Amino acid sequence: MTLRRASKKDFINLKGYEKMFKKAIKLLKEKDNILIIAHVRPDGDSLGSSFALKLALEAIGKSVIVACSSKVTKKYQIITHLTDLKVTKKPDFVISVDVASTGQLGEELSSYADKVNLVIDHHPTNLGFGIDENVIIPEAAATGEIIYDIIREMEIPITKEIANFLYIALMTDTGCFRYSNTTSKTLVVAAYLMEKGADAYNLNKYMFDTMSIAGILLRREIYKNIEFFEDGKIAAITITQQVLDETHATEDDVEAVTTIPRKIEGVLVGFAIKQIGEDVFKISARSGEEIDVSYICGTLGGGGHKRASGCTIYGTANEVKSEIIDATLKYIRDNNI
Amino acid sequence: MTLRRASKKDFINLKGYEKMFKKAIKLLKEKDNILIIAHVRPDGDSLGSSFALKLALEAIGKSVIVACSSKVTKKYQIITHLTDLKVTKKPDFVISVDVASTGQLGEELSSYADKVNLVIDHHPTNLGFGIDENVIIPEAAATGEIIYDIIREMEIPITKEIANFLYIALMTDTGCFRYSNTTSKTLVVAAYLMEKGADAYNLNKYMFDTMSIAGILLRREIYKNIEFFEDGKIAAITITQQVLDETHATEDDVEAVTTIPRKIEGVLVGFAIKQIGEDVFKISARSGEEIDVSYICGTLGGGGHKRASGCTIYGTANEVKSEIIDATLKYIRDNNI
Repeated sequence: MTLRRASKKDFINLKGYEKMFKKAIKLLKEKDNILIIAHVRPDGDSLGSSFALKLALEAIGKSVIVACSSKVTKKYQIITHLTDLKVTKKPDFVISVDVASTGQLGEELSSYADKVNLVIDHHPTNLGFGIDENVIIPEAAATGEIIYDIIREMEIPITKEIANFLYIALMTDTGCFRYSNTTSKTLVVAAYLMEKGADAYNLNKYMFDTMSIAGILLRREIYKNIEFFEDGKIAAITITQQVLDETHATEDDVEAVTTIPRKIEGVLVGFAIKQIGEDVFKISARSGEEIDVSYICGTLGGGGHKRASGCTIYGTANEVKSEIIDATLKYIRDNNI
Repeated sequence: MTLRRASKKDFINLKGYEKMFKKAIKLLKEKDNILIIAHVRPDGDSLGSSFALKLALEAIGKSVIVACSSKVTKKYQIITHLTDLKVTKKPDFVISVDVASTGQLGEELSSYADKVNLVIDHHPTNLGFGIDENVIIPEAAATGEIIYDIIREMEIPITKEIANFLYIALMTDTGCFRYSNTTSKTLVVAAYLMEKGADAYNLNKYMFDTMSIAGILLRREIYKNIEFFEDGKIAAITITQQVLDETHATEDDVEAVTTIPRKIEGVLVGFAIKQIGEDVFKISARSGEEIDVSYICGTLGGGGHKRASGCTIYGTANEVKSEIIDATLKYIRDNNI
């Protein structure tokens, strides 16, 4: 089986994946009354991929619902519009999209943990909890790349709307083609999606190049109060409830600034420490090549990717900051960095 | 003649350009002792394209020098290394790369205004001042795309270094594939360059995702002092000599913040007003679809692209600000925006 891509040249070798693709496509063709589950606290890849797959399957006459345990933040409502992402009828076939583990189904949909028929994902840590098939391709920059291959292999036309959804999936998981997961294939797929009508410029502007007034006020605080440790190898910003109240920053606004500390020259690891309750903070950790933040966050009960992880720590802002900085200093010393 | 591209599919139609390509390639094959001129105050496209062409021509045995009237800022020294971009011997063939007009040759190289044999450029305003041939392709997002077509058509192998230079050309002129000039062809070319070894991740990080300490201090000032006019349709930041002295911000640091005002929600036009002498300021104007800043800057003796232009105004900071804001208000009213 030859997988269809934008170019006739095979940009990445998908050998070894043919069997799972074939099985998945057979299932998608046979089944109906389908439920697609996006992961809890959904991002652009999970939602873009889920809705692209929904539209593609609807185009061949299937009945498809997309559900998610969390509410969708304002930014991603351009994908979901006013749909409420609830399960409204008992499905005959369940697909999880971009869901790394059953825990990521979220509380509301946790009852599906042993009922997912087909897993489609790119997280390398995914153990494959699908009953019928698991299409897990860690080489894919975004799950959207896998959905693209499936839709093209099924010979379902990529409409302008599907193109937009898949473009959102790709751009959000690659920081608009800047992160190290971006491959030549990602760019070739994105090129094809533009050919099919993806409104790249406006999507880029909307997702990455628009700052709210709250975002400005938030940055005003951040640039005033950014802290450095260990000769500038570590940088941290703390966003207290007071700052959130004063700036009216939304989750999207906070999300947009979490990468700022890591971008600073000489910084190997950056933390955004955000208050989420009384004496409880959510840490977002971002690193370059030298530091594995999934390990550091793992020691504090969290986890994620090597260069992008998170954890939740209880205590005052200063206690929490000390805890994450100490864990990082230990890592730096243990690894002679 | 079929132009070679990353994909066999023609992503953009280059019909009508074959003749000029053929002629240009004939000249490049015949001539030797070549001088390539990059435009004054060179950017990533001009330098990346010039050095990619230099390496390609050297690979087929030509003697090539790249020259420029201005010094190269620190950021772009990864392209030029320690070469001083001076004309060290009388050339037999002169090529201008990404130079929109003879004025853009700069003072030092102004004597070449009537001696450029081949013009290679993508600026739509280029009138074609080349004596032998003019390859001007406004559809190209960057001049680097044109250089890519020339190198491939000449069947000169794209080495890792050439790939890096062309990738820099593409990424800097498209804001890393975010601006509206980005086409599917741009992405396909970028994909090909990655295949040939372009270190996309590290180049992206270096060009777009690295902030100096001076950059942080500069942003601290900017987010504190950003000003809005006309119900938030206009935003402006002013960077006085005092701010430059206090923050130690370089030209690269200032360049990186010029787009901030335009990114703010609701802002149609953003200005960065930077002091360049006593009572003299350089204005960088950036806009969305609604406003033609080349017109506004044109009324003040400057010019550029519709969405990115500049001008120089004499006066105190407040006088200069009034002048550019008044010109913009007039434009907004005249055009019922």
